[in-house]
Amino acid sequence: MAADHQKNSPPDYSAPDPDFEARGRASFAKQTMMATLGAEILTVRPGHVEIAMPFGAHILQQHGFVHAAALTAIVDTACGFAAMSMMPKGAGVLTTEFKMNLMSPGKGERFVAVGRVVKPGRQLMVTLGECFAEEAGKRKLITLMTATMMVMNTPGIVD
Amino acid sequence: MAADHQKNSPPDYSAPDPDFEARGRASFAKQTMMATLGAEILTVRPGHVEIAMPFGAHILQQHGFVHAAALTAIVDTACGFAAMSMMPKGAGVLTTEFKMNLMSPGKGERFVAVGRVVKPGRQLMVTLGECFAEEAGKRKLITLMTATMMVMNTPGIVD
Amino acid sequence: MAADHQKNSPPDYSAPDPDFEARGRASFAKQTMMATLGAEILTVRPGHVEIAMPFGAHILQQHGFVHAAALTAIVDTACGFAAMSMMPKGAGVLTTEFKMNLMSPGKGERFVAVGRVVKPGRQLMVTLGECFAEEAGKRKLITLMTATMMVMNTPGIVD
Amino acid sequence: MAADHQKNSPPDYSAPDPDFEARGRASFAKQTMMATLGAEILTVRPGHVEIAMPFGAHILQQHGFVHAAALTAIVDTACGFAAMSMMPKGAGVLTTEFKMNLMSPGKGERFVAVGRVVKPGRQLMVTLGECFAEEAGKRKLITLMTATMMVMNTPGIVD
Repeated sequence: MAADHQKNSPPDYSAPDPDFEARGRASFAKQTMMATLGAEILTVRPGHVEIAMPFGAHILQQHGFVHAAALTAIVDTACGFAAMSMMPKGAGVLTTEFKMNLMSPGKGERFVAVGRVVKPGRQLMVTLGECFAEEAGKRKLITLMTATMMVMNTPGIVD
Repeated sequence: MAADHQKNSPPDYSAPDPDFEARGRASFAKQTMMATLGAEILTVRPGHVEIAMPFGAHILQQHGFVHAAALTAIVDTACGFAAMSMMPKGAGVLTTEFKMNLMSPGKGERFVAVGRVVKPGRQLMVTLGECFAEEAGKRKLITLMTATMMVMNTPGIVD
Repeated sequence: MAADHQKNSPPDYSAPDPDFEARGRASFAKQTMMATLGAEILTVRPGHVEIAMPFGAHILQQHGFVHAAALTAIVDTACGFAAMSMMPKGAGVLTTEFKMNLMSPGKGERFVAVGRVVKPGRQLMVTLGECFAEEAGKRKLITLMTATMMVMNTPGIVD
Repeated sequence: MAADHQKNSPPDYSAPDPDFEARGRASFAKQTMMATLGAEILTVRPGHVEIAMPFGAHILQQHGFVHAAALTAIVDTACGFAAMSMMPKGAGVLTTEFKMNLMSPGKGERFVAVGRVVKPGRQLMVTLGECFAEEAGKRKLITLMTATMMVMNTPGIVD
């Protein structure tokens, strides 16, 4: 999955709104779903956001692994905030679609979602999201997401 | 989205395991994620499962709507159990991928996920999942999912 | 996949542009890809388009079945024109993403793609596309697509 | 989209079948769809395949750009053969699903599809596919795909 082209010309995004990090963290704090999952933001860079979530007994599926939807929650949010970091001041973000490939079960002590902007469009942004399971000091890629984020410019609809 | 061909030849599935409903409900009861969301099974028929979830202050995104991941949780589970109902006794179900189109925000009093089996394969089952928002006695389709479920035959891995 | 809710309240779309059919057929005629595949439009109704393609020795994959991409071509086009039929005069359509589940191989005499609008939004339209293989007088659903179509209002960019 | 984890531990796949390249090229040669598109294999490495396709007047959509389905054809095939390169001798490959995000129109002199294996499972392989448009010596990422490939072990069904 190493992107050769990226090695030659890595995305060097700059955020249109200098307050992008504070804005992203404030928006995250409003998501009660994140608190329910015990998730926290690790990193906010232009076009790149990382979110961590501990294993929790209250978010499991029938085999005792973390539910795919809990992993979806942090990856979608990481992708959404990565997109928001590339939007002008005042714009809100809305996920229009995502697709998750679940490659290995949600087994681990902690899960780290990494969301990146692949295409920062004016109306739509395409993002790539990965989720890693951490266990005994090791990291394993367990899910892969692509998602489309919409730029919402209507005040009042979003914040 | 009315499927004309289905009107002429509706799927008339029969479950290979007569205990499919009890098995599905027992599996659902083990999902702590469902309890966290306040979700409950409404209907289990061969190849067709419905799950309901009330609006909850603890599962919201930044604009005050139900988080896409909470909707994903009930739709994925409805699709997974719809697939499991078509599997032989002893087989377990594993989601390998899903894609959600989010058409309207998660706004409503209650959300009902409907999962259906479109293709009941031996190794993989393709499912279609819908989520409806209920408000003031009205129902609105707000998300559309397609998902692939894998039939797990290895005892011990799944139950 | 029978959509129960649709049976009770089927979508009864009306096209904003009365010339939607002529517009769709003219746009189809410009797609050289459709001619290469031997595809033709069967039906254009508001929010509903059907396209047929015969089996062809020049569009196969390595096992002698019709290539998934050829099926994708007619389903994407059916979905795109279904969306276009719901757009105002002068607007163009652009596919932003699609996902295909390939349930059975592309084996048959003729393939019929059915594209329907599920959500006719102002900026984005969500569509559902099916592909049926016809053989010896029988019809079989072989692929399932969901796709997002964007409404393009900039003259000159699209036609 | 640069994958940090990959920089630290790039996938260093080795092919189970030493004849993987000859097998991939022979399989490609059987795809009449590839000849119709004018596509050719550029690179076959374990878990990594590149395919090129020139702009062609016979594969366009209504705005004069290369049809999304033609791009899909080469990306799906690159992903499929990348997966096949990681399979044991005698196994065949079948795409079970793919999702494409179309980020920019199919405008350019040549299109290069890069397919990579992200997760080489025993039954299913998850792949990531990119398509680049080349024009005036420049390369631009225009589409992003994730796809699931199935390992087919039944002789006679596949080759």
